[in-house]
Amino acid sequence: MSDIQKLADGVRTGNIRSLAKAITLIESRNPDHSGDAASLLDQLLPDSGDSIRIGISGVPGVGKSTFIEALGMNLLQQGYKVAILAVDPSSQLSGGSILGDKTRMENLAREANAFIRPSPAGSNLGGVARKTRETMLLCEAAGYNIIIVETVGVGQSEIAVAAMVDFFLLLQLANAGDELQGIKKGVMEIADAILINKAEGENRPRAELARQQYENALHLLRPKNDHWQVPALLCSALHHQGIDEVWNLILDFVATMKKEHQFTSKRQLQATDWMWTMVMDNLKDLFLQDKNVAAMIDQVQTGVSNGTTPPSVAAKRLLEAFKRN
Amino acid sequence: MSDIQKLADGVRTGNIRSLAKAITLIESRNPDHSGDAASLLDQLLPDSGDSIRIGISGVPGVGKSTFIEALGMNLLQQGYKVAILAVDPSSQLSGGSILGDKTRMENLAREANAFIRPSPAGSNLGGVARKTRETMLLCEAAGYNIIIVETVGVGQSEIAVAAMVDFFLLLQLANAGDELQGIKKGVMEIADAILINKAEGENRPRAELARQQYENALHLLRPKNDHWQVPALLCSALHHQGIDEVWNLILDFVATMKKEHQFTSKRQLQATDWMWTMVMDNLKDLFLQDKNVAAMIDQVQTGVSNGTTPPSVAAKRLLEAFKRN
Repeated sequence: MSDIQKLADGVRTGNIRSLAKAITLIESRNPDHSGDAASLLDQLLPDSGDSIRIGISGVPGVGKSTFIEALGMNLLQQGYKVAILAVDPSSQLSGGSILGDKTRMENLAREANAFIRPSPAGSNLGGVARKTRETMLLCEAAGYNIIIVETVGVGQSEIAVAAMVDFFLLLQLANAGDELQGIKKGVMEIADAILINKAEGENRPRAELARQQYENALHLLRPKNDHWQVPALLCSALHHQGIDEVWNLILDFVATMKKEHQFTSKRQLQATDWMWTMVMDNLKDLFLQDKNVAAMIDQVQTGVSNGTTPPSVAAKRLLEAFKRN
Repeated sequence: MSDIQKLADGVRTGNIRSLAKAITLIESRNPDHSGDAASLLDQLLPDSGDSIRIGISGVPGVGKSTFIEALGMNLLQQGYKVAILAVDPSSQLSGGSILGDKTRMENLAREANAFIRPSPAGSNLGGVARKTRETMLLCEAAGYNIIIVETVGVGQSEIAVAAMVDFFLLLQLANAGDELQGIKKGVMEIADAILINKAEGENRPRAELARQQYENALHLLRPKNDHWQVPALLCSALHHQGIDEVWNLILDFVATMKKEHQFTSKRQLQATDWMWTMVMDNLKDLFLQDKNVAAMIDQVQTGVSNGTTPPSVAAKRLLEAFKRN
């Protein structure tokens, strides 16, 4: 039996050391490891998929860790195995802004059936997201049936996370002033639910007002799915209030999607979209590294930018240069 | 002087026949014409750009034609030359759902300083959008200093139009019932203003209520530009009410963007984005037409879709097949 087969077997039995080693292989930047990584994924893919994949986002300070810990402990008590992953392309620069250490989720970190993995390093979102996506498959093969993917509410990482999960939850706060905390462009429309955290004590009435305002705003958008009206909910992660409601909502969503035959088809679409994203990224690299293209790209881009070359003419010239090779 | 030089000169003097002939050349699907079309664009590009480009969208029945006619007549009276173009990839199939004939804008159609051009034929959005974008440049070279690009509020055409204009206006209605007319996914976030039409007679209070609701919803989204809070306005295109306010708003927007040095830079970014879109579309075609890729693509896609091949492994195999040529 090859080393990779042994590693795959270890992952399948739920051995934590094997899982950690497998993830390290997937995350490796050494090109010599990529064949083994592909082979490992090939072997474990049939064992993956039996899970609910939940994306969670929100700006720093919204209480993501507290919420994930509350939800995670709740799920462990119900007998689930929970893996918590992260997508944060800035973590390398900032020294690990999320999930950099396990002390943020003290209780979960002590549980045998919880697996916490910080964001893979890298400043390139595509690369970071690929690694997290494949780590998710490894965790599923290891028996984790709830996968939580956390991301920070800045940049494009939310779009990347939404593209790898079944359900995307946006955490928000009711701000101190009258103004609500603005939702970032594009995010309201990928959320399957909006959850207003810290709805506790004297903050509760303000949170309820915010909830109504978000719900009104959500009604102005055509639903992204005909079978799901995106709701706005309240919770207090600190006081473990509203956690069951969120979980029941997720179960309701999953049941609805399965009933409408959209659960598996969404995953299939995510997988093919992901393949095409990687193909196109690589094609672009090939194109930019082409000698003929590289020799003229600066001049052509400048021409387009300063309005002396029509974009269609510029594209044609570059493509002809590429085809000459 | 070559025929193309003569045609370019004709366009520059504002000759309508030359402009129509030039547009026909740009729209031609005959590959033999593409060299001439590129040469014409090259010659006229330095004369283009001196305009305000306005995108207008809204579902059928919202009153786009009536509004464009009202705004257009207003602009003609102020001495502007107005070109009205369209992006509608479905027009070929539906027999011209928008701007298929000039009778929709009877008054404008009779004016010497208004130029109305229906959507180019084609079911492929990229191709239709390219032709409209280049027709816009020809119209500018012919002296039209207001370009209105109309599109229907279905499909992805709004995103394509927003990518070619300075200002994007979304027309909405206050619905008969309590429910507001939902705004399509992604569109609220590309709009620079929302205009509620048919705010007239007994419909006026409902329209004002809708306006407030949209304005509240817009406040929940972080503005796409720090220097512009997207407003919601009322108008009655039928009774020519609120048209001046819309025009003043557009002038205000243009002045603000110019003051912030964002007017030209946005156009530069649109031009380079456009070039890259065309390059990537063509690269994808090259890839799909590659013999090695074509021989395995179905099998690989099926493997990804049914969960037996990891997307990263599939992408790698396809790229290796492509590179073998």
